[in-house]
Amino acid sequence: MERSESQLVRRFSVKRVGQEGHPAGAFERMVDSVATEEPLAIRISYWFKDTQHNEALAVTMRTPGHDIELAAGLLLAEGIIRGSTDITAIRALGAEPSDEVLVELAKGVDFEAWRTSRNGFVSSSCGVCGKRSREAIAQAVPVLHDGFQVAASVIERLPGLLRQHQQGFAQTGGLHAAALVTSDGALEAIFEDIGRHNALDKVIGWALRNNRVPLQEGILFLSSRSSFELIQKASMAGAPLLATVGGPSSLAVETAREQGLTLIGFVRDGRFNIYSGEWRIHS
Amino acid sequence: MERSESQLVRRFSVKRVGQEGHPAGAFERMVDSVATEEPLAIRISYWFKDTQHNEALAVTMRTPGHDIELAAGLLLAEGIIRGSTDITAIRALGAEPSDEVLVELAKGVDFEAWRTSRNGFVSSSCGVCGKRSREAIAQAVPVLHDGFQVAASVIERLPGLLRQHQQGFAQTGGLHAAALVTSDGALEAIFEDIGRHNALDKVIGWALRNNRVPLQEGILFLSSRSSFELIQKASMAGAPLLATVGGPSSLAVETAREQGLTLIGFVRDGRFNIYSGEWRIHS
Repeated sequence: MERSESQLVRRFSVKRVGQEGHPAGAFERMVDSVATEEPLAIRISYWFKDTQHNEALAVTMRTPGHDIELAAGLLLAEGIIRGSTDITAIRALGAEPSDEVLVELAKGVDFEAWRTSRNGFVSSSCGVCGKRSREAIAQAVPVLHDGFQVAASVIERLPGLLRQHQQGFAQTGGLHAAALVTSDGALEAIFEDIGRHNALDKVIGWALRNNRVPLQEGILFLSSRSSFELIQKASMAGAPLLATVGGPSSLAVETAREQGLTLIGFVRDGRFNIYSGEWRIHS
Repeated sequence: MERSESQLVRRFSVKRVGQEGHPAGAFERMVDSVATEEPLAIRISYWFKDTQHNEALAVTMRTPGHDIELAAGLLLAEGIIRGSTDITAIRALGAEPSDEVLVELAKGVDFEAWRTSRNGFVSSSCGVCGKRSREAIAQAVPVLHDGFQVAASVIERLPGLLRQHQQGFAQTGGLHAAALVTSDGALEAIFEDIGRHNALDKVIGWALRNNRVPLQEGILFLSSRSSFELIQKASMAGAPLLATVGGPSSLAVETAREQGLTLIGFVRDGRFNIYSGEWRIHS
């Protein structure tokens, strides 16, 4: 889980106006730490009619670091792959710091069928992209594990756990975090990114590469709000429980209820709201 | 600027765990207000070789309301259209509440050229989507107005102005707002949406439909952080100044500096940081 601070943050000279205790109009020059945003190109190579094809899949804006996990998680969350064996190789291209990742898909992966159903497009900040009809938005998700249960006290402690391990946010105020936590409250993985979708993709990609998908056991915890797309990503990874510091959207609640996913929001100050699947939380 | 509260918010019965002053594990049933998220399909009709074509452009997740402005703003921000005369008609399709908008483009609009350059894709939550190379991300922006100047005291008062007019946030904690404000601090327009990109698209679309584009004069103010895509949208609308409650990403700062846009962040508690174009702010 080591991360280079220099990847997460960049420093800029800025003009700060109206300091505390000074009259309006007063200013000072200072150096401000800013969350890094850089484009990542994701290329895939796939098999179609016994020929291997290689093409650019998408460009996504992300915070550099764990690009391999990001690409793997994105492909799983978007339904291009179903498990770790669907990827035969995955690597950064070009010189460091690389801004391009190549994912080689196994022969059995029918990328052409996926492309046809989705208009060939995918982006980590937009799972809906390229789906030209509302019907195309819904996708088949694995059956979630009904037996997974978590104590309320574990949920209540999640924000403290996140704060302890979130390096970039304190400096920039601009990075989201996504974590995978066991049912007894131990941190398995945490990733930060300017995009909440990216942060979740990185955790899912990490889980995939560590043979933890489908995530029958495990809490996904995000520093952000939850939306339809985040519910879809969690469900595609088989996660039974998604908890967030912020609140859910209406469609996040409706989708979680349909899919039987436990959705928790506003986890802060020792309290939280259960929007869906409350049977997985015990006192 | 009237908005129906029922569009912005939906109510769900939830289980609230760990109330204040109660032991952990205590809970109550309550009704929670949640920001509405629903898909909007955007169709366009355009001319190619003297024939009018009609097709689905994209599905975007948004908070219902001002879908016309959203669609118009999105098309401008993405570079499909350049001004209000590029749209001959725009209307909601189907019965109310409609979740589909049709935009009719004027004969001179070369949509096929745009599609070829961008892989035919657009989404309000993802301006990068469908651009398969890093080079394709940069787009031509109008020259911004250098003479536009704003007093620091006007910037300092922006959060109060937003709070006064932001209906949905107080109820849900889950809606972003985007506002257009004059150089002397008067509110011209404000829109709320679960997506910060959508909220900005709605303001830009409103400006377009009121013949205020390019926005040579005017402050765009967002409740969110700023990213590369938001800078691009503001620049495409010709806005000289973008201010946000949250902080910018590194690429937001770099892009604003390249384009000569004044970028301000962390506008809160009577203070703010100027990341770019400080000559537009006077004391």
